[in-house]
Amino acid sequence: MIHRLAAQLIKRGRLHMTLPNGSRETFGPGGGPEVRARLTDRAALVRLISYPRLALGELYLEGRLILEQGTILDLLEIVVGSNPWEDGAKRGKTAMSKRSLAPLMALLRRNRPNKSRSNVAHHYDLDDRLYDLFLDPWRQYSCAYFLTPDIGLDEAQRLKLAHIAAKLDLRRGQRVLDIGCGWGGLAIYLNRVAGVEVLGVTLSTEQLGYARAWADREGVADKVKFELIDYRHVEGTFDRIVSIGMFEHVGAAHYDEFYAACVRLLDPDGVMLLHTIGKLGGAGAPDPFTDKWIFPGYHVPSLAQMCSSSEKARMVVADVETLRLHYAYTLRHWLRRCEARRAEIVELYDERFYRMWEFYLAGAIIMFEAGTGCNFQVQYIRSRRALPITRDYMADAEARYRAS
Amino acid sequence: MIHRLAAQLIKRGRLHMTLPNGSRETFGPGGGPEVRARLTDRAALVRLISYPRLALGELYLEGRLILEQGTILDLLEIVVGSNPWEDGAKRGKTAMSKRSLAPLMALLRRNRPNKSRSNVAHHYDLDDRLYDLFLDPWRQYSCAYFLTPDIGLDEAQRLKLAHIAAKLDLRRGQRVLDIGCGWGGLAIYLNRVAGVEVLGVTLSTEQLGYARAWADREGVADKVKFELIDYRHVEGTFDRIVSIGMFEHVGAAHYDEFYAACVRLLDPDGVMLLHTIGKLGGAGAPDPFTDKWIFPGYHVPSLAQMCSSSEKARMVVADVETLRLHYAYTLRHWLRRCEARRAEIVELYDERFYRMWEFYLAGAIIMFEAGTGCNFQVQYIRSRRALPITRDYMADAEARYRAS
Repeated sequence: MIHRLAAQLIKRGRLHMTLPNGSRETFGPGGGPEVRARLTDRAALVRLISYPRLALGELYLEGRLILEQGTILDLLEIVVGSNPWEDGAKRGKTAMSKRSLAPLMALLRRNRPNKSRSNVAHHYDLDDRLYDLFLDPWRQYSCAYFLTPDIGLDEAQRLKLAHIAAKLDLRRGQRVLDIGCGWGGLAIYLNRVAGVEVLGVTLSTEQLGYARAWADREGVADKVKFELIDYRHVEGTFDRIVSIGMFEHVGAAHYDEFYAACVRLLDPDGVMLLHTIGKLGGAGAPDPFTDKWIFPGYHVPSLAQMCSSSEKARMVVADVETLRLHYAYTLRHWLRRCEARRAEIVELYDERFYRMWEFYLAGAIIMFEAGTGCNFQVQYIRSRRALPITRDYMADAEARYRAS
Repeated sequence: MIHRLAAQLIKRGRLHMTLPNGSRETFGPGGGPEVRARLTDRAALVRLISYPRLALGELYLEGRLILEQGTILDLLEIVVGSNPWEDGAKRGKTAMSKRSLAPLMALLRRNRPNKSRSNVAHHYDLDDRLYDLFLDPWRQYSCAYFLTPDIGLDEAQRLKLAHIAAKLDLRRGQRVLDIGCGWGGLAIYLNRVAGVEVLGVTLSTEQLGYARAWADREGVADKVKFELIDYRHVEGTFDRIVSIGMFEHVGAAHYDEFYAACVRLLDPDGVMLLHTIGKLGGAGAPDPFTDKWIFPGYHVPSLAQMCSSSEKARMVVADVETLRLHYAYTLRHWLRRCEARRAEIVELYDERFYRMWEFYLAGAIIMFEAGTGCNFQVQYIRSRRALPITRDYMADAEARYRAS
């Protein structure tokens, strides 16, 4: 049975498994990565068979799935990535069979402000030194923008900032709200290239401290401010709203609330740019490993889900760009950087943390290369008369920002 | 009661109504168009009050609502357009109160192939000479693309064709399917500027004959072919699919079927561009006048509706551009041209037809300027690896096509 299942899943590469009783099994037709793996105990095998989507990562981080040849990325490329979604592969079988329950389950996963804060702390209050090890100088912990796949990460993150700034159609002196400002890189960038004032809000105390110190060092603390506040509690109105890599944490139960808040916060002639991981092929349940270990309460939206909520709020979708492989490129850079700094990460935490982190990055690469992962950039307006009538302004502004 | 209602609806302009009993009423605060209208009989007044959305147009075309000053566009600007959707105006009140029934009603409006054919004949088999009177040389009966609002219609339609061709990322020799090819202008254009082979399909015998004769005259009948066939019955696969102004006639009950057919017809590395009137703010019931007199069986989709169906079919939305005011600009040109050729239209049909046509164009202008109307251009791919990874190719190709 396992061999039949493996033949359906594995279209490329070869996996040699040593089972706890010492027997060896080989799966896959070859012609790709070659991985040798060993399961240490019988309970691990049972867990892997009964709930592979969670067990694979957990057994790896627990050191009970041991790789003797190849990396965890190689392993995931074989067992998940060799059968891409485009070719008709079912994704999230558990989730699919419970498809009709998925919207209900999503509604039960409510991220009220207190819960949001603890969810955020779980990931973003990790030691700053960890993020120092693999992020770029603008400290962008989200999908970069590659003109070609082979440009460097630092360059691609700077280009991402220019790409987003261009879509915001900024004017000097405008007030910008950055929802989920991270360590403040975007806010400082926008002020520098476009002369706008920015209020960045975050729920992470670590990020808040970092961002404020950064704005101080740059001497722009009077124009670029940061607050520890839930976006639902922000007051006033803004000429522009930008939100990068935060919507993933909103939760499907709160999409209507999110857009209602944005309409309230956005000037009637304002422009908003939302940059979020998205799901191709319709909404589904979250990945159990990611939800448990990495991003509690997260939900990746489909475009239909986003549009359904933004339409209710009378937000007009002016432009959508689906960045397809860019996040895979980004993650491959992060993974390589983490591999190169493995000893330092282990010293900061431990081997187990390192393997969890490695599994998370590798799994995300596969999601963007062969699963249903993508990154949406959606530009919203409240009035059809906002923004120029063609998109030509974007390229003009982008060229200017790239040069500055 | 009428005055209270009018105060809610009319934010600009002034309407003087002479009622059948000779009494006069004035509505609106002024400061915009000034219209004098007269209702000829008491039954007309009753109909107007009980079902204004249908009666307004019908009474106008029947000559029972007579304008003594101003145009029907002026009248619609006052009673519908002065309270735009962005400012919170309710739209399609009848439809809104039946909101929960709208999806069910849409499903009951099935456009099976035979029905589709008669729906299409209703409008597109009108005398060719009518369309001659107001369309541009490329005979584009859909939203044009204005670099600035004041360029001419002929230029804007040519720019629309270049804009669409650029989004198709064409290579010489590729096979393109044009679903709902109209009179063949796009097909002939694509062959001319990009050297592609095009199969255009239509359900209108008038359009078919016109398109074939046009390709013959151009000497490209071996590369640009036209068939009278429902898109659901087309066979084979194509490198590119394009569909302009046809999706409006598909009907909400058939969106899943439409995308499933497109996936079947599109090469796995192919690209599709869909250009359709869209609805801001969520799906709703069709306008009763338009459905009865102009486009039987039509349905204007919201982006959420489109995405919901395309996601099921595993189509990847690569790019969305919402053209906001472009269709209003286009329609204003058409209306002005029709007004200038009124005598000829009346000679082709009669006064009643002319008023119907005028009401249809004027109503559409208001829908795009103040109602929920917009025009979506959505670019689809089947594989995330199709198309270049950034959108920069669009501007390059567009500049080339504009110059050619």
